[in-house]
Amino acid sequence: MTASVATAPATKGLEGIVAATSKICFIDGEKGILAYRGIDIHELASKSNFEEVCYLLWYGKLPTQAELDGLRKAMVEGRKLDPAIITLMKSFPKSATPMEALRTAVSALSFYDADAANLKDHDANLRKSIRLTSQIAMIVAYFDRIRKGKDLPAPDASLSHAGNFLWMLNGEKPTKTATEAFDIALILHADHEFNASTFAARVIGATETDMHSCIPGAIGALKGPLHGGANEAVMKILYAIDKAGADPVAYVKDMIAQKKKMPGFGHRVYHTEDPRATHLRRMSKELGEKDGKTKWYDMSDKIEHYMNETNQKKLNANVDFYSASVYTTLGIDLDLFTPIFAVSRISGWAAHVIEQHDDNRLIRPRADYQGPAVPAPYVPMNERK
Amino acid sequence: MTASVATAPATKGLEGIVAATSKICFIDGEKGILAYRGIDIHELASKSNFEEVCYLLWYGKLPTQAELDGLRKAMVEGRKLDPAIITLMKSFPKSATPMEALRTAVSALSFYDADAANLKDHDANLRKSIRLTSQIAMIVAYFDRIRKGKDLPAPDASLSHAGNFLWMLNGEKPTKTATEAFDIALILHADHEFNASTFAARVIGATETDMHSCIPGAIGALKGPLHGGANEAVMKILYAIDKAGADPVAYVKDMIAQKKKMPGFGHRVYHTEDPRATHLRRMSKELGEKDGKTKWYDMSDKIEHYMNETNQKKLNANVDFYSASVYTTLGIDLDLFTPIFAVSRISGWAAHVIEQHDDNRLIRPRADYQGPAVPAPYVPMNERK
Repeated sequence: MTASVATAPATKGLEGIVAATSKICFIDGEKGILAYRGIDIHELASKSNFEEVCYLLWYGKLPTQAELDGLRKAMVEGRKLDPAIITLMKSFPKSATPMEALRTAVSALSFYDADAANLKDHDANLRKSIRLTSQIAMIVAYFDRIRKGKDLPAPDASLSHAGNFLWMLNGEKPTKTATEAFDIALILHADHEFNASTFAARVIGATETDMHSCIPGAIGALKGPLHGGANEAVMKILYAIDKAGADPVAYVKDMIAQKKKMPGFGHRVYHTEDPRATHLRRMSKELGEKDGKTKWYDMSDKIEHYMNETNQKKLNANVDFYSASVYTTLGIDLDLFTPIFAVSRISGWAAHVIEQHDDNRLIRPRADYQGPAVPAPYVPMNERK
Repeated sequence: MTASVATAPATKGLEGIVAATSKICFIDGEKGILAYRGIDIHELASKSNFEEVCYLLWYGKLPTQAELDGLRKAMVEGRKLDPAIITLMKSFPKSATPMEALRTAVSALSFYDADAANLKDHDANLRKSIRLTSQIAMIVAYFDRIRKGKDLPAPDASLSHAGNFLWMLNGEKPTKTATEAFDIALILHADHEFNASTFAARVIGATETDMHSCIPGAIGALKGPLHGGANEAVMKILYAIDKAGADPVAYVKDMIAQKKKMPGFGHRVYHTEDPRATHLRRMSKELGEKDGKTKWYDMSDKIEHYMNETNQKKLNANVDFYSASVYTTLGIDLDLFTPIFAVSRISGWAAHVIEQHDDNRLIRPRADYQGPAVPAPYVPMNERK
């Protein structure tokens, strides 16, 4: 039964409100459990790979070898950008940020997509998911090289999604360690239930518009400092501590005394350790040790210990806290952290748009109206103040 | 208190669920009342104009003459597109639809916006609202002329927003009747509480991202057949009836017998006459009579009478039913109906992003998980089926 006048008090930010059913992602915020299609993230982070996780998210089951080979082949074939997209990115001004560029270029992809007019067909959506995943990685890598005046390396069909991305970004073949670390980062960021960008994609998709309309909206949401921007904020603090030659704990203590929030801690859903942080912490340490540069890990470790011991709200390190040092150790620029989040999260966004389209209902909530009493008078111009 | 595991059953499409408080728009679906900032839509449609409605939505009150003059001046000054946006639109392929073009061009506007880096400041948001409203009208008009190989008329500072849009679209000065009719259509479509595109804009904005990230998402949502596409669907039926020389009632009867839905009837929120339909019906009749072409109105009238007499779900004509014949009588192409919706609704989208940013909380609901039991096993490759 619909309330025709909405009078119930609003739960701000829809916190704790169930917006829809979903079979994709399970989160238990008290126990710190995250699972894709029922499989625990710890299992996936240690045994799976990004392409397999894409299959799992999109098709709802782990692939056989033949199925995985088929998806890998399709993703390699999807590594194609219409030359007009390259021209488009080259036309962006020097001041364009990678997230604006990504949002705009992804919106333009629909012009060249063979299934563009096919708004919500299940199989067309799967084809678009594959192409968008391959193309978003290309756009992020190529835009970074275009703005730096570098050439654009052709995709390497022999490389995995993670390896090929690092190759297209850096123009040199990545080490096994770097590829593996990046692959795990992609797995960890692939989906997270109804986070803001995914929920935005579902709200848009529920009008039965095409996937290429949903994803720019999701990218726009991810761009927000409360969503995708937190690891960038963490790294800026680590850089500031390093530049000042400060003690990390004293620096953070001072920040908190000034009522500033330490980014990378606390989460709307997790009230215990973010299970993704477990892997990123380990990767941060291992990558640092391998490179002989544990500076960022050491600094992060000290801050985490301090936060765990002192903060009264029991804010734990979240996915963003250690991804900052991981990406920096991998040599990735600060303003690519959020675009890289999109390189992974497109897999989850696509899965959610498919699920929404397959059993759809327009998402159209109500507002709790608190404006002027109705009817307010239309005061004539000469009587207004 | 947050539920850390979401177990409550979902209300599909958040129907009847209050998502947030708002002071912008009041709807009483039972009584058929729509009010912006408390003022009844019938008052506004008969006494106001689009610029004044923009002021009302953005500033929360009716403007004095000086305030209205100031906004008009700012909107006229906002009628500027960076030449790169024109070049961008000219680079779009011939197959590009107006909504894809609009979504992409609006995303690119942030590259050239003076306040782009200012993500959520109230005054910066007001400046962006003004610019976006002026620029979206230009993009819609110019893209249509570009694809038709026509020249691009410079904006005319002496014309109102409605008049200038018709001028930029048609390349000839609009009649007083056409300008007035289009102005009323803009007023009627300006806002509608938490409709899907507005709600999408708020979900995106709640990450504290910039307005230029919210609006492409809203445009993407509006593009969906369940949202902005309905008047286009209505008009296609009227064209089909005309082409077949069929009796409108017999045609619709036949459609319904084939379990096809007649678009333009029924609304998630209104269970009585959509108050916007009242004005569009009258305008459809008057515009037709003025032009001596009442064909589309007459056809619509017959269909509405038949629907009112026979349909058991008491589906009333909604905003889309008569806007179809109004736009067609104004000489507007079928595939511009939804972009024109955006030309108006940007005013409401902007008001809602401002309100969200001014008192923000991340919009992050939960899913009711119905997937495989957790933990599901990570079955080794050779045991998979």
